[in-house]
Amino acid sequence: MARRRMVYEGKAKILYEGPEPGTLIQYFKDDATAFNAQKHDVIDGKGVLNNRISEHIMTALTSIGVPNHFIRRINMREQLIRACEIIPLEVVVRNVAAGSLSKRLGIEEGTPLPRPIIEFYYKDDALGDPMVTEEHIVAFNWASQQDIDDIISLALRVNDFLSGLFTGVGIRLVDFKIECGRIWDGDYQRIIVADEISPDSCRLWDIKTGQKLDKDVFRRDLGSLADAYTEVARRLGILPEGGNGKRGPKLVH
Amino acid sequence: MARRRMVYEGKAKILYEGPEPGTLIQYFKDDATAFNAQKHDVIDGKGVLNNRISEHIMTALTSIGVPNHFIRRINMREQLIRACEIIPLEVVVRNVAAGSLSKRLGIEEGTPLPRPIIEFYYKDDALGDPMVTEEHIVAFNWASQQDIDDIISLALRVNDFLSGLFTGVGIRLVDFKIECGRIWDGDYQRIIVADEISPDSCRLWDIKTGQKLDKDVFRRDLGSLADAYTEVARRLGILPEGGNGKRGPKLVH
Repeated sequence: MARRRMVYEGKAKILYEGPEPGTLIQYFKDDATAFNAQKHDVIDGKGVLNNRISEHIMTALTSIGVPNHFIRRINMREQLIRACEIIPLEVVVRNVAAGSLSKRLGIEEGTPLPRPIIEFYYKDDALGDPMVTEEHIVAFNWASQQDIDDIISLALRVNDFLSGLFTGVGIRLVDFKIECGRIWDGDYQRIIVADEISPDSCRLWDIKTGQKLDKDVFRRDLGSLADAYTEVARRLGILPEGGNGKRGPKLVH
Repeated sequence: MARRRMVYEGKAKILYEGPEPGTLIQYFKDDATAFNAQKHDVIDGKGVLNNRISEHIMTALTSIGVPNHFIRRINMREQLIRACEIIPLEVVVRNVAAGSLSKRLGIEEGTPLPRPIIEFYYKDDALGDPMVTEEHIVAFNWASQQDIDDIISLALRVNDFLSGLFTGVGIRLVDFKIECGRIWDGDYQRIIVADEISPDSCRLWDIKTGQKLDKDVFRRDLGSLADAYTEVARRLGILPEGGNGKRGPKLVH
């Protein structure tokens, strides 16, 4: 494993060549970044938690027929995924106003949206991941109109599923981000969900208390990020009931 | 006229009650503002020029069947328009990268776009007129999907027409902004083009020299705004050939 070839290193994950053609190994780092990497820290155990949470969600999505890149978890920090051609967009689905939507449109955080809103951001760190519209996406050939339609369908299905999943464990799904990619079955192209789905990429608020259980804890210095993610994992049944990640250090290292 | 009721005062125009129900008088001020009114100046004659240029363009649009609010010019600074319910969006059509598109997406100014791009900005000075997508527009009920489809159709027709008009007088139509409103013929709602179409709301570059003939002259301190607008009016045949607005002061005051 030491000499395997690195394919890509991002802010929170590394991709290595996989054992077979068409596969990659996705490694989850402990690094936390925000505000386009202007804020950075290392959160002991975050990578382990996100690996497990993303596995849990992607596996469930597969079971309801939402195609995604996940194949199987390899170890505490790594999962085997299907290689795909990443579409350079962050696809955001919002159910409740928060974050940049609240700021840009002057809507108080926590205001329920009249319907889910999908936004696209062009993945480009140098540009600060600017919001773009379907017009830009098609004009610059980042994706075709058919791709966009497929992405929206996937995003809305993921939203329905995650809304249910989190409601079931007392968490309000405020918003989340996915990335999508293209794979080919022969000549037939399909869009699949890629990257990860974890508290790094979702806004998750406790339904009763409003407590934040996501990366905003880090962005806004609201306490222990590891504790928040551990709580999400625990509620999803990934960690033993009552476990908080501190009692079982082997689970998160 | 002195006691007529003011209905609305914007940065560059004032609306007064019109002589008949369903009409308004649109008065063009000489004020020039940019960067959400952080930059302000009074440009002697600008209002007169924009009143004439907008009359010229709206009349031509009527003649090709693009519905708009213009009824007739009243005097040098005023025109009679049809009252409509303004949709709170700036509708931008871009043919060439410039301004905020270049900045946000890192595309060099002057790069022709692969196809016209339509953008929507939510009209709200306090928020700095943020860019929004069809998702936001429908979700917050600023316009229906049918309204948006109608607006896009109008915007593309205006783009085709203006592209031809300006090409014909040696000017490259880089981009422009329109606003739209709703009127009712009985129970039947229609979307019409409202506001103004002038060098305040278009980017216009001389085809040969690239010289800017629009509000960027003011935004970027590139010379005399009145001279640039006068040149546009002259080319459109509104001012006598060779006239530059200085020789005929009565025309612009």
